[in-house]
Amino acid sequence: MQFDFYQIHRNTKFITLMLRIAKQSVFFAFIVFAFFGYYYQLDRDSVFIFKYIGTAMAAIATIKVSIFFLFRNYRKVLGGNLRHIAILGGANKDTEQLKNFFAKRPDYGYRLKNLFDTNDSFNIQEFTDWVIENNVDEIFCSVPALTNEQLVELTDFADNNLRTLKFLPDTTAVLSKQLHYEYYGKTPILSLRQIPLDDPVNN
Amino acid sequence: MQFDFYQIHRNTKFITLMLRIAKQSVFFAFIVFAFFGYYYQLDRDSVFIFKYIGTAMAAIATIKVSIFFLFRNYRKVLGGNLRHIAILGGANKDTEQLKNFFAKRPDYGYRLKNLFDTNDSFNIQEFTDWVIENNVDEIFCSVPALTNEQLVELTDFADNNLRTLKFLPDTTAVLSKQLHYEYYGKTPILSLRQIPLDDPVNN
Repeated sequence: MQFDFYQIHRNTKFITLMLRIAKQSVFFAFIVFAFFGYYYQLDRDSVFIFKYIGTAMAAIATIKVSIFFLFRNYRKVLGGNLRHIAILGGANKDTEQLKNFFAKRPDYGYRLKNLFDTNDSFNIQEFTDWVIENNVDEIFCSVPALTNEQLVELTDFADNNLRTLKFLPDTTAVLSKQLHYEYYGKTPILSLRQIPLDDPVNN
Repeated sequence: MQFDFYQIHRNTKFITLMLRIAKQSVFFAFIVFAFFGYYYQLDRDSVFIFKYIGTAMAAIATIKVSIFFLFRNYRKVLGGNLRHIAILGGANKDTEQLKNFFAKRPDYGYRLKNLFDTNDSFNIQEFTDWVIENNVDEIFCSVPALTNEQLVELTDFADNNLRTLKFLPDTTAVLSKQLHYEYYGKTPILSLRQIPLDDPVNN
């Protein structure tokens, strides 16, 4: 959506934040100039308007960047604003990489409670009871480690109990790529994402 | 992307076309008013500018809608601008639905060349040879009917020979939903699409 410059989350990168502020500035400048185009009687000098936009955006950018770093330090140093997570899928390359990432980056505010092995003795019911007992907020779930029925059951559980469910895709699978969703009549069809050069903006 | 109002394809619905024209009008109006806000010396009456925007957008809309219906009729009546397609995956509910859709809507300009069964005797090499021989442009491929190795092989073939590959997802699978792609460090993570009400624009 166009207004994605308000979408700053804990896993948003700093460079993304800066890009979104730049995008917001351009958007804001257009709105302000459109206002003076509509109220043409006001007859303001463009240099004056640019100064106003510059001041306003500098203030907004300062606040956004300060909040971004304040939150990071609050999570890292004081350990507040945490999210408790669980990883489902045993120890393989992908889950290890994710685990190390969370250990290395305490400023993201994710605390790993447990890494579950999904061997034969794994039971969804026991797992969901454990999730509720331990106030786990997010479940990262390795797709190849679970059957489709287990995934459906987990999704229902997450929906009903307001937990966030995220998937670690099987990186060798074709369907883990970025896919574009569209309908042909009533049939949903996935197509591989278009090449960036097909986008008129990038030409 | 913001400029998706230029993205009109053969499978775009008429209502989507109209919505995109509306979006383009709003965008265009802001640009024009911003122009008059910047060149404040021109001092034009807003009513005059609205008349200009109205005329310009009416012309653009007429051309877009005419081209849309001209192309539809060209495909339907004269049978030009065709795309030859093949469906992989044997006769099941989804492939049948897609097949019927293409038969019922000749204005989309898709001509089904063959529906392949992916039983044990199915061979990717033979299939790709057949695709090149028959100038097939798009391959619709049922995901549950093929193994991951076969899917990877098909993707490589499609990339190297400039054919379009599309997937019919297993509609019972969790991962056939609209997913959001993001990175945690180097690990790609898929999350279920956000609820539309989470979007500030819809509030």
